[in-house]
Amino acid sequence: MQPAYGADPNRYQVIPRVLVIITHGDRMLLIRRAEHKKLWPGKYNAPGGHIERGEDPHEAGRRELFEETGVQVETLQLRGLIVAETGLSGTGILVFIYQGVTTDTTLQASDEGDPVWMHPDQLSELDLVSDSPLLFDLTLNQPDFFYVYKIPTADGGEKVQVRLVPAT
Amino acid sequence: MQPAYGADPNRYQVIPRVLVIITHGDRMLLIRRAEHKKLWPGKYNAPGGHIERGEDPHEAGRRELFEETGVQVETLQLRGLIVAETGLSGTGILVFIYQGVTTDTTLQASDEGDPVWMHPDQLSELDLVSDSPLLFDLTLNQPDFFYVYKIPTADGGEKVQVRLVPAT
Repeated sequence: MQPAYGADPNRYQVIPRVLVIITHGDRMLLIRRAEHKKLWPGKYNAPGGHIERGEDPHEAGRRELFEETGVQVETLQLRGLIVAETGLSGTGILVFIYQGVTTDTTLQASDEGDPVWMHPDQLSELDLVSDSPLLFDLTLNQPDFFYVYKIPTADGGEKVQVRLVPAT
Repeated sequence: MQPAYGADPNRYQVIPRVLVIITHGDRMLLIRRAEHKKLWPGKYNAPGGHIERGEDPHEAGRRELFEETGVQVETLQLRGLIVAETGLSGTGILVFIYQGVTTDTTLQASDEGDPVWMHPDQLSELDLVSDSPLLFDLTLNQPDFFYVYKIPTADGGEKVQVRLVPAT
């Protein structure tokens, strides 16, 4: 059978992920990633993960949030997108950045890591995943929809471009 | 070299596309797709196409709009997403649905098809791509962010699920 909707597997594709930025009053929800994680072991980051086949990005955001922290929220707002080059020619990464609030601060650890509530003035003391301060700032401190394009550089760093688009 | 950001090409991936719904007053911009198109030849649809490596969805939306219709807009609002199964096990389709307005109604045809301005009451007379009425309605007649999940069925039809999430 032909793929539906003209899908051509030779086209450029992206691995879809979500990142969920949750606040309660002036605190935000982070995870200290488990030491056994291949990517960013021991570092602090917002909850998130891969979007699986069969779910949309909003469902994935709610699922990852619950699995990693025990926090349940009804609705998340899509605030921005990251498109990242990976070094693979036909495969990028696309991250949906969601924002939400919760009234229930009860946390539940998982195999992924330990969730914690942090005040923003504590962030500078933490070993954060490198783009976290930028993403937190774009999500929490300005109203526009944001697009972040990331290109890894040969020295292990990255080139980051940010564009803002009025949300309404 | 290892792929950046832990990208695993064996993960579920999606082919990213954009669809751009443009209005001018009470008219909307459609394209009658060229007869040589493999997908939906001769049918009417909103402008759009594939997101290419090196651009974000907003840039892709502006580019496809200009290439297919000659219309230039500064900003597009992201209003919803389609996630579609394709029949391929590891590859879905993800469509970013953008909305915009233009003051310049001048149109320029391309090899992709012929752009036209239409009143909504003319749509019922047109041979539209099947999900167009639903997507136009969700974009133009209600304020929420929308998620559409599509699963093709064995008879050539599709199962469509719609979920609305307050945009703010």
